[in-house]
Amino acid sequence: MPLLPRRFERLKSVLNHRMADLTVLLEHVEKPHNLSAILRSCDAVGALEAHIVSLQGRTRTFNSTAQGSQKWVPLNDHPTIETAIGSLKDRGFRVYGTHLGVEAKDYRDCDFTGPTAFVLGAEKWGLTDRARDLMDEALFIPMRGMVQSLNVSVATATLLFEALRQRQAAGTAPSQGEGLSADHYTKLLFEWSYP
Amino acid sequence: MPLLPRRFERLKSVLNHRMADLTVLLEHVEKPHNLSAILRSCDAVGALEAHIVSLQGRTRTFNSTAQGSQKWVPLNDHPTIETAIGSLKDRGFRVYGTHLGVEAKDYRDCDFTGPTAFVLGAEKWGLTDRARDLMDEALFIPMRGMVQSLNVSVATATLLFEALRQRQAAGTAPSQGEGLSADHYTKLLFEWSYP
Ligand SMILES: C[S@@+](CC[C@H](N)C(=O)[O-])C[C@H]1O[C@@H](n2cnc3c(N)ncnc32)[C@H](O)[C@@H]1O
Ligand SMILES: C[S@@+](CC[C@H](N)C(=O)[O-])C[C@H]1O[C@@H](n2cnc3c(N)ncnc32)[C@H](O)[C@@H]1O
Repeated sequence: MPLLPRRFERLKSVLNHRMADLTVLLEHVEKPHNLSAILRSCDAVGALEAHIVSLQGRTRTFNSTAQGSQKWVPLNDHPTIETAIGSLKDRGFRVYGTHLGVEAKDYRDCDFTGPTAFVLGAEKWGLTDRARDLMDEALFIPMRGMVQSLNVSVATATLLFEALRQRQAAGTAPSQGEGLSADHYTKLLFEWSYP
Repeated sequence: MPLLPRRFERLKSVLNHRMADLTVLLEHVEKPHNLSAILRSCDAVGALEAHIVSLQGRTRTFNSTAQGSQKWVPLNDHPTIETAIGSLKDRGFRVYGTHLGVEAKDYRDCDFTGPTAFVLGAEKWGLTDRARDLMDEALFIPMRGMVQSLNVSVATATLLFEALRQRQAAGTAPSQGEGLSADHYTKLLFEWSYP
């Protein structure tokens, strides 16, 4: 099927807003509606890709909540939390763990304008000790109610939208494709155009 | 069982942060995990209560995602969207519909420091025409990706956290119980203490 010009413009416009330097790493998050809502939020904000460390033997599944966003935001698998965080650090990301510990910082006091990766924990257990040891900094979203934590897809979105807000305020949120390398842009535009 | 002093302090602290003038109205939202995540976000932000218009014959159910927040944030039933929006307007709320229409405003350009009600639509269909006619103002969360909308519980949380942010910036987010009437405070403290 030939690619309609309007469709091509739309694909370019989305790529123009993508950010390679904003991402999430999901540690053992596994409910389909959470995974789905998270990828959908990544797409909405403009995060180029996402990362996951799955529990052994679990396959991840999405549901209608994803609305196809798994096609537009690759979810990269990592065998262990060490390799996952290690590769993000090698690529220059500051790795923020979400953890309501003593030294954790209010997310509004953190600077997300540089390369930023948020690590989110499992629905029941939160982050593993190993993830906590490896992260650069701990942050939390202040809670004013009776329940101690947010749903993980809500927490992810709250952090992503705050990062976007800060970048828009700083004038660094991309709109002309400057958020990813030219090679990557061309490759993705081709893949998206001729799936 | 006697009430532990620590528990009593916790209940008071939560009530001290509650806001009677920030709420959500859900129109035909029905997936248990969405309803659950929404009430949990209301509790976290400090919204005193929430409202719903259900599709006829549907009973609402929560799941583990709620983490008990349905006990702390009453979800008031309304027979129709007319009575629901009408009663919110009577109580002085500005009613914001979430709708990606032409005249809709970017949510960051809206002022949520006054009495604010967000109307959220069904997972599949969004707001009804009737709700659109009745609301005071239309707003949207800008989307930068391929998918046209956010998951409804993510959208709700994004709006609630923006309202909280604005109120904190304005110094009007309550912390000493000034967010609800003294009568209401006393009544709730009693109910929560001796359920
Ligand atoms: C439901 S929570 C896990 C709760 C778990 N009982 C604990 O103590 O960590 C699942 C994940 O959502 C994220 N999350 C939930 N509430 C958060 C908050 N207030 N601040 C930051 N992240 C949060 C974290 O990534 C957390 O690991
Ligand atoms: C999945 S959306 C409904 C999508 C539906 N196809 C439509 O066109 O409205 C469900 C609800 O989430 C809320 N929502 C989703 N994305 C939003 C956005 N970008 N801005 C504001 N509200 C949004 C709205 O309340 C909407 O009615």
